[in-house]
Amino acid sequence: MKLVTFDQGRIGIVAGERVIDVTDLADAQSGAWPPVGMVRLIAEWKQRGGALRDALANRKAQPLADVRLEAPVQWPNKVIAFPANYHAHIDEMKHGTGSGVISTFKASGQGFFLKASSSLSGPADDIVLPPLAGREIHHECELGIVIGKRGRGATRAEARDYVFGFTCLLDMVVRGKEERVMRKSFDTFCPTGPWIVTADEIADFDAITMRLYVNGEERQRASTRDLIVDIPEMIAMSSAVMTLEPGDIIASGTPAGVGPVVDGDVLDIVIDGIGAMTLRVRQGELGAHPVWDEAKAGLAV
Amino acid sequence: MKLVTFDQGRIGIVAGERVIDVTDLADAQSGAWPPVGMVRLIAEWKQRGGALRDALANRKAQPLADVRLEAPVQWPNKVIAFPANYHAHIDEMKHGTGSGVISTFKASGQGFFLKASSSLSGPADDIVLPPLAGREIHHECELGIVIGKRGRGATRAEARDYVFGFTCLLDMVVRGKEERVMRKSFDTFCPTGPWIVTADEIADFDAITMRLYVNGEERQRASTRDLIVDIPEMIAMSSAVMTLEPGDIIASGTPAGVGPVVDGDVLDIVIDGIGAMTLRVRQGELGAHPVWDEAKAGLAV
Repeated sequence: MKLVTFDQGRIGIVAGERVIDVTDLADAQSGAWPPVGMVRLIAEWKQRGGALRDALANRKAQPLADVRLEAPVQWPNKVIAFPANYHAHIDEMKHGTGSGVISTFKASGQGFFLKASSSLSGPADDIVLPPLAGREIHHECELGIVIGKRGRGATRAEARDYVFGFTCLLDMVVRGKEERVMRKSFDTFCPTGPWIVTADEIADFDAITMRLYVNGEERQRASTRDLIVDIPEMIAMSSAVMTLEPGDIIASGTPAGVGPVVDGDVLDIVIDGIGAMTLRVRQGELGAHPVWDEAKAGLAV
Repeated sequence: MKLVTFDQGRIGIVAGERVIDVTDLADAQSGAWPPVGMVRLIAEWKQRGGALRDALANRKAQPLADVRLEAPVQWPNKVIAFPANYHAHIDEMKHGTGSGVISTFKASGQGFFLKASSSLSGPADDIVLPPLAGREIHHECELGIVIGKRGRGATRAEARDYVFGFTCLLDMVVRGKEERVMRKSFDTFCPTGPWIVTADEIADFDAITMRLYVNGEERQRASTRDLIVDIPEMIAMSSAVMTLEPGDIIASGTPAGVGPVVDGDVLDIVIDGIGAMTLRVRQGELGAHPVWDEAKAGLAV
């Protein structure tokens, strides 16, 4: 099943080019704040799944083109991210434009970090660049894993039970030496969507392939088969530390091919069996602060 | 006013040694999931403040000792944290037990990171240590700032308007070379409470003094006067990057005196004009994972 959030917090199921409004069945409300409708629906999936399947069969649908899709999950407990999780990307960061700015630990020894939930945006939202003179802002194409079950201390064997579904995810980042979390948490720096595909539709978690195009040209291509920390291990590692909650999102790391984006670029992310999004990049006005100047100048304590 | 969360998500106002239940006025519900009652109340403070003041004057109160206090804010959009924000702490990390593990950037050039919302715990919860052989787990005594207003791009002059209130906060951390966010995001690694004191009760944000005691012995003492990035600047810097949301928490950084805690220790945090909490430290069983062994052995890519 494909689940969307649209039109200020409404919840829908996508069937082909149409969407069925199930906001009422999700016990959600358009405009409700904080927007936790999808998080609650995921937590109550076992009780609500039947009614949703009935709605899919019997309710009237509207054209997807008539609604504005939003970030599927808008107020999760956390957005977990795995850095340096493909060998080829580690190599490019050590030797390429990002020289010296990547940790020498790979993800299996480095662990994970977090992106701000406020950085989540949706398929209809532009990626808005902060005005940081002289800084590169890079695209990172990633698979987003949506957690379905509350728990701590999951084993590899139990991990599949924790996966509610998948979504396309871009992990945007300002390159530099400041704290990585800050460089990755600007508003709109975590586009997700266009929907969540439930895990039952994905036969093999280790054979999910993704591509990223910049202005129509392929820049990144990968398969989850090449992950250093695979999906079960990401769940085992993060749940060793933290209680995972329904609606939590894991950004699984980016493959080789990252590069700068500028005002006017168009990014296409395609994940086979999951979905595709076209995102516009736009120069914004907010984001400057002396913290970016000071670090750029290399000032240490 | 002093606001508490208690008994599975009930909301209360504290008056002396008693608490007045205002769960209904906060439009909250005991046991509701996700627990966003306090976040919503903070967002609607202007509309609800009058009814709360009436309740404080007219409703029957119960003894604080009869309720179980919980983390005041349980499901914020984000928990922002400022590292290396007092000069004396930077010095001890460069030269003391933490030698080599602190960045050479101070907070003004390094920026901020995030702690997982799932690491939040309350005044009645133990601090539970993960079983990581050979690792030190340190206490960091901090002032917690609770945001009251949604916004981006706040100036220093506007910053005070963004402060809803303050709370005591401990930023617990496993020392090591892994990603700092992971080392600081274990469940119970962000004790907060015992309540939120609204900002109107604090005359001077630059003269808030705090102390931390381990087993009755003073270990940390500081004033917000000695912050490198002060409260207005923390709000300006974080809101340059991210939309701040009502209920967001800022951990403002720790002064000198951090040190290891072990099973059985008792921590007391006291912040003048705000409150005090006594927290027990207990060895737990969850948290081990090969990621901690690999990094400990110093394995690089």
